Amino acid sequence: MIVVMQPGASQEQIDYVVNRVHEMGLRDQVINGTELSVVAVIGDDRKKDRQVFETLPGVQKVVNILAPYKLSSAEVKPDRTTVAISDDCVVGGRQVPVIAGPCSVEGEDHILECARAVKAAGATALRGGAFKPRTNPYSFQGHGEDGLKMLDHARAETGLAIVTEVVTPADVERVAEYADCLQIGTRNAQNYELLKACGQQPRAVLFKRGMAMTIDEYLLAAEYILDAGNPNVILCERGIRTFENHVRNTLSLAAVAEVHKRSHLPITADPSHGSGHAHLVPSLTYASVAAGADAIILEVHPDPQHALTDGAQSLTPAEFTEMMPVMARIAESIGRALAPAPVNV
Amino acid sequence: MIVVMQPGASQEQIDYVVNRVHEMGLRDQVINGTELSVVAVIGDDRKKDRQVFETLPGVQKVVNILAPYKLSSAEVKPDRTTVAISDDCVVGGRQVPVIAGPCSVEGEDHILECARAVKAAGATALRGGAFKPRTNPYSFQGHGEDGLKMLDHARAETGLAIVTEVVTPADVERVAEYADCLQIGTRNAQNYELLKACGQQPRAVLFKRGMAMTIDEYLLAAEYILDAGNPNVILCERGIRTFENHVRNTLSLAAVAEVHKRSHLPITADPSHGSGHAHLVPSLTYASVAAGADAIILEVHPDPQHALTDGAQSLTPAEFTEMMPVMARIAESIGRALAPAPVNV
Amino acid sequence: MIVVMQPGASQEQIDYVVNRVHEMGLRDQVINGTELSVVAVIGDDRKKDRQVFETLPGVQKVVNILAPYKLSSAEVKPDRTTVAISDDCVVGGRQVPVIAGPCSVEGEDHILECARAVKAAGATALRGGAFKPRTNPYSFQGHGEDGLKMLDHARAETGLAIVTEVVTPADVERVAEYADCLQIGTRNAQNYELLKACGQQPRAVLFKRGMAMTIDEYLLAAEYILDAGNPNVILCERGIRTFENHVRNTLSLAAVAEVHKRSHLPITADPSHGSGHAHLVPSLTYASVAAGADAIILEVHPDPQHALTDGAQSLTPAEFTEMMPVMARIAESIGRALAPAPVNV
Amino acid sequence: MIVVMQPGASQEQIDYVVNRVHEMGLRDQVINGTELSVVAVIGDDRKKDRQVFETLPGVQKVVNILAPYKLSSAEVKPDRTTVAISDDCVVGGRQVPVIAGPCSVEGEDHILECARAVKAAGATALRGGAFKPRTNPYSFQGHGEDGLKMLDHARAETGLAIVTEVVTPADVERVAEYADCLQIGTRNAQNYELLKACGQQPRAVLFKRGMAMTIDEYLLAAEYILDAGNPNVILCERGIRTFENHVRNTLSLAAVAEVHKRSHLPITADPSHGSGHAHLVPSLTYASVAAGADAIILEVHPDPQHALTDGAQSLTPAEFTEMMPVMARIAESIGRALAPAPVNV
Repeated sequence: MIVVMQPGASQEQIDYVVNRVHEMGLRDQVINGTELSVVAVIGDDRKKDRQVFETLPGVQKVVNILAPYKLSSAEVKPDRTTVAISDDCVVGGRQVPVIAGPCSVEGEDHILECARAVKAAGATALRGGAFKPRTNPYSFQGHGEDGLKMLDHARAETGLAIVTEVVTPADVERVAEYADCLQIGTRNAQNYELLKACGQQPRAVLFKRGMAMTIDEYLLAAEYILDAGNPNVILCERGIRTFENHVRNTLSLAAVAEVHKRSHLPITADPSHGSGHAHLVPSLTYASVAAGADAIILEVHPDPQHALTDGAQSLTPAEFTEMMPVMARIAESIGRALAPAPVNV
Repeated sequence: MIVVMQPGASQEQIDYVVNRVHEMGLRDQVINGTELSVVAVIGDDRKKDRQVFETLPGVQKVVNILAPYKLSSAEVKPDRTTVAISDDCVVGGRQVPVIAGPCSVEGEDHILECARAVKAAGATALRGGAFKPRTNPYSFQGHGEDGLKMLDHARAETGLAIVTEVVTPADVERVAEYADCLQIGTRNAQNYELLKACGQQPRAVLFKRGMAMTIDEYLLAAEYILDAGNPNVILCERGIRTFENHVRNTLSLAAVAEVHKRSHLPITADPSHGSGHAHLVPSLTYASVAAGADAIILEVHPDPQHALTDGAQSLTPAEFTEMMPVMARIAESIGRALAPAPVNV
Repeated sequence: MIVVMQPGASQEQIDYVVNRVHEMGLRDQVINGTELSVVAVIGDDRKKDRQVFETLPGVQKVVNILAPYKLSSAEVKPDRTTVAISDDCVVGGRQVPVIAGPCSVEGEDHILECARAVKAAGATALRGGAFKPRTNPYSFQGHGEDGLKMLDHARAETGLAIVTEVVTPADVERVAEYADCLQIGTRNAQNYELLKACGQQPRAVLFKRGMAMTIDEYLLAAEYILDAGNPNVILCERGIRTFENHVRNTLSLAAVAEVHKRSHLPITADPSHGSGHAHLVPSLTYASVAAGADAIILEVHPDPQHALTDGAQSLTPAEFTEMMPVMARIAESIGRALAPAPVNV
Repeated sequence: MIVVMQPGASQEQIDYVVNRVHEMGLRDQVINGTELSVVAVIGDDRKKDRQVFETLPGVQKVVNILAPYKLSSAEVKPDRTTVAISDDCVVGGRQVPVIAGPCSVEGEDHILECARAVKAAGATALRGGAFKPRTNPYSFQGHGEDGLKMLDHARAETGLAIVTEVVTPADVERVAEYADCLQIGTRNAQNYELLKACGQQPRAVLFKRGMAMTIDEYLLAAEYILDAGNPNVILCERGIRTFENHVRNTLSLAAVAEVHKRSHLPITADPSHGSGHAHLVPSLTYASVAAGADAIILEVHPDPQHALTDGAQSLTPAEFTEMMPVMARIAESIGRALAPAPVNV
C-alpha cells in the first residue's frame, strides 16, 4: 500500500500516518518527492482496511499494491490448476470441453433428448437448471429435486457429466448428491454464504463472474470457495453489465488472458449469456475458443421457440452440430483440441 | 408486447407469429406499416417468455410494452405506501427519517456510543451490521448473533429503531427477532431465496438496489418480497457500478423521482455507499434530501480511523451533527421535514 | 509514479527499470517489500508516457501518483476561480446563476419569447443553440449564424447573458462575436482542436463533461483550454453513459464535490441532459443546487410538444417558474443564493 | 414508433396524440389492450423528434420501431459493401487484411523500420499517426504534415497502403493528399463537422466506434459520412468504456456479428486499443479474427519501451510475426484467409 500525502502535508501529519502503520504491525518507508510525499507501507496489508488511511489528516489517497486475493493468485501457485468435473471432463488442460444443454430441465424426455443431441455433436458435459434464479418471480422457477433426478438419468444414459446450478446454501448438499459440478450463477456471485457452502463440499464448482465484478473482485470472491477448502474452482466469463443495449450482457474476452496471467484457476466462456441472442452466439463462441477459454458452455434446446426459459439465446441442435467442427479447427489453430464426447456407456 | 417483423417478412411468417401468440392464450393485432409490419400482442404477457418471439422466422425484435412488475407498480396502487419500521420511524410520508450508525457493530460499548451520538444529533433509527457480507474473505465478518444482542441493548437505551442486514435465508428468523427492519444488501439483491424468506416474515425490509440493476429489474426483484406476503418494502438507491473511478459507486438520484413515478413504494438514499468517501457524503446527502428521498441512511462512526469496516466513508458524530440542520432546512424547502429523534425512553 | 515489480523480479530487472527512470531525467527510490519490490519515481513525470514501464521485463504494473492535470488543479491555485460570463452573470461565487432557455434557437419570435419567460422567472442567462451537433444527420441542425443574431437581439432586449454552443474550430471566432459564453458539448469534449481554439479567445467557456470521461480525464481536457491561454473555464456535469436505460444519461452529482476538492474551477449542473425526461428534471435540479453546483443550466421551451429538438426534456415556463423559489430556498439552506435576473435594460 | 399510453388514459388524450401524429404527416392505428392503449404510428418517422410524444398528456413512453439509420442499413443494401483502401488492401471480402504499425510516426527512419517489419510479417497496410489526439495536452502531439510525408515515403518503398488519422476538418484535404485511408478516432466519433468533411472527399474512411456509443448511435454517426457522399466507410470496434479497470477499454466483439446483421458496411477490430495492454493483445486478436472481423488493426513498434505513444499496448515485430500464422489458421477455420502483403514494388 502507498499512502499519498497532499502537497504541503506537514511532518506531523506524515508522522501520524507512520504511527498508524506501526499500530497495524506494518513497516513504513517515507519518500519525499518534488511535489508531495508518500508513505510506502511494507508487509502483508491484505487483511487490513487499507482505505481507512484516507481519513487521516493530510492524506490525499491510498493506492493498493498487493492484489487482495491470495489463494487464487498465480504467485502462490505458478502451475495451472486442472479441475476434473468427471473422469472425461477435465477443465484447464490442453483439451477444451464443451458443456451444452438447455437453460432449464423441462422434463424427463426433454432432457434426454437434449443430452443425446449434444453428445452426438461432441459435447463432453450436459448443463441444465433444476433450480432457476429467475429475474421475474412469475417465471418458471425450475423442477427442483425432480429436475436433479432427470439429470441423473440423462447421465446414466449418455455418460455426460452434469453441471447444474445451486441457488441457496440449504440446497448445496442435495445438488452435490446428483451433480458432477455445481454452478454458481452471476446473481449469486457475491452471495458469500453460498460460496462458503460450495467450498465445504468436494464437487467442482463452476463459478460465474458477477455481472458488475472487476477481475480483482472476482478472484477475491473465488477465495471464499478456496478458503473453505475446495480447490476445484472453475471461473466463467459470462458477460458484464455495460451501456450496450443490443446484448443482454457484454462478453469481455479480455478476462480470459487476464485471469490466465493473474491466477492458476481455469476460466471458461459462456457466449449464450454473454450475448443473449442466438444470432450472436456462433461468432462469440469462435472468439471464445480462439481467446483461449478452457471450456465453452452453451445453451442448446431442441425447440427454442417453445423453451420455458432463455429461448432467445438457445441454439438448435442443428446449429450446434454445425459449429462444433469450426470450434475444433480453431482450437487446433492455437495448439489445443476440443475434448471428446464420453465413449458410450 | 410488440413483435417487430423484418422488412419483407412473408405473410406466412406473420401468420406463424400470430399463431404462436394464440398458443400463449393472447390476442393479436397486425399493423402493416410502410416499411415493415408489427404484431401487437394484446393481453397480460408478463408471465410469458416474451423474448422467445425473437427466435421465430422473419422476426426482427421484440419490444415489451407492459412493465414486468405488478405488485410494486403505481398502477395497481396509486397511493404511496408508508412503511413503519417502528412507531417512531415511518418511511414514505411527509417526514424524512435519518437512519445512522456504524457499518458494523464492533462491540457493546461501541454501538452504545454510536447510538447516543446519532440520537443526540437527531437520528430516528440506528443502523449497524452484525452479519457483514465482505468482499474480502479475510476481512472482519461481523459479530453475528452477539451483535444483534448489542443492537437490542442500544434500542432499549435510546429508543432508536434498529436496521440491520441479513445475508442468508437461514438467519432471517433470528435477525427478525432482534431487528425492527431487515436490510438486504446490494450483493444479495438478486439472491431470490433470501428475498422470499424476507417476504415470509412481517418486519419491514430495507431492500438496497443491486449495483448493476435497472429500475425495472429492481422493482421486479422487490416483487419477490411482496409476492411472498410482506408489503413493508423500502427501496434504497445506494449507487450503481459505472466507469467512474473516483467513487466506489455512482449515486444515481434520478432513481428517486423515477421510483416515485412508477411505484407506490418508498425509496431512501444511501450517500455513504453511494460515494465511498467521506468528503463527498455531505454534498450527496443534501442532494438526496432535495431530490425527495423518503429517508436518508448514513454511516457514522465515533472514530473512523479505527473503524473495523468502511472507515473511509464514515462521518464523525461532529460532522453528522453539523449536517443535520442543513438537511432539515432543505427538507423544509421542498415541503417536508426531518422526522424527530425518539423521545427519551 | 510507482513501478510495481513482479514477485521474484531479479535485481537486474530492477536495475533496468531504475536505469530507464534516469534516462527520463527522473530520480528513483527502490523499496523492497516482503512480497515484492517497487520503484518509486521522484520528479514531475506528467509529461512522460508512464505506462511504458509496463513493457519492461519483471514489471507487474505502474501506478500513477501525481494527477495528470496541472493548471486546473487546486494545488496550483488554492482559491476558487470565479468566471464572469457577463457583468451580471458570475459563476463560482456565493451566488448561483440559472442559465435557461430552449435547446435550439427556432426563430426570432421564439427565442424572444423564451428569453422573456426565463427572465421573468429569474434566470440570469439565456441558453440556446444556433449550431446543433445532432446524433441524427436527418434532424434539424440549427439556424447557424442567423441563430446567433437572434440571440443577440434577445440579449439586447432582456439583458440576459448569452450561452451558445460552438461545434468546430472554424466557427469559434464567429460565435465569440455574438456570445458571452461559448459552450463545448459532450460530444466534442475530446475534440482537442476545438478546445484549443476556444482557449485562444477570451470569452468564458462552458465546457461540458464527456459522457464517458472520468474526472481525471475531464480536468485534463480542460487543460487544453487553460494551456491555450483562456482561464475562464466553467465545468459542467451533464450526466454520464451507464447501463441505466430509464434516463438518457446518469447525472453523477458526486462530480460537484470532487471537482471542488481537486480543482479551482467552478462546476455547474445540467439536469435536463442529465436525465433526458422532463418529469425527472425538478427533482434533479433541486439535488444539483443542494449538492453545491455553481450554476444550473436548464432547458425551457414555451411549447415542448412542438420543440424542434429535445422536447422530451424541456420544462414549460410555468414549470420553471414554479421551481425557482424552491431552488432559491435550497440555495439559502446551504448558505448560498440564486443570482438575480439582470435589471431591465 | 409506438406511443404507449398510461393505463386509464382518456379518449381525449388518445385523440390528442393521434392528432399530433397527423400533424407530422404520419398515420396512426390505435390498439386498445387489456391494460392500456397504444398508438402505432405508421410512416417514416426517422426525421421526426419521436421523443416529443413523451410530453403529451396521458403518454407513458415512446418506443421506436424503425432503426434511426438508413444508408448504412442492411435493409437498403442487402449485399455487403467492400471498401478498397488500395488495390491490394480491400476490406469486407473473404480476405482479411492486417493493418499494422506504430501509434505515432516518430521519424523517417522509425516509420521505415516499422513498415519493413510489418510487411515482412505479412501486413497489407501501415498505420501510423501524424496528427495525434492526445488525452494529455503535454504529451507528444505528432509530427503533422512532416509525418504525412514520412508515411508517403514508407508507402513508396514498401507498397503498403497508408492509414492515418485526421482530427479536424481543416486538415482533411491535406491528409487525403497523402493517405489511402483516413482514420477518425474514437474521441471524434461524434465530431459531426469532421465526419461531414470526410464524407466530402473520396478516400476510404476507417471510422472508429466512440467509446460510449451504442450500435444504433454508431451506425447513425456513419450516416454523416455516407450522406455527405462517401460510401467507403469501414467501421471499427475498438473497445468501449465500462467499469472494468484492468483494461483501457472493453473490446465488445458482439459488435462484429451485430453490425454484419444490421448493416452492409465492413467492420474491423482493434485489439490494441481494445485492451491497452500488450499481454492481452494476442488473445484478443485471435478472438477478433474468429469472430469474423473484416480486418485487424494492430499497434506494432520496434521498441515499445521507448515508443513516444502507446508503448504499453504495442507488440514488438517479433511478437507480431509469431502471431500471423496463428491468425491465418484461424481465418481459414472460418472459411476466410488473411490478405497477402503487397508484392514488391
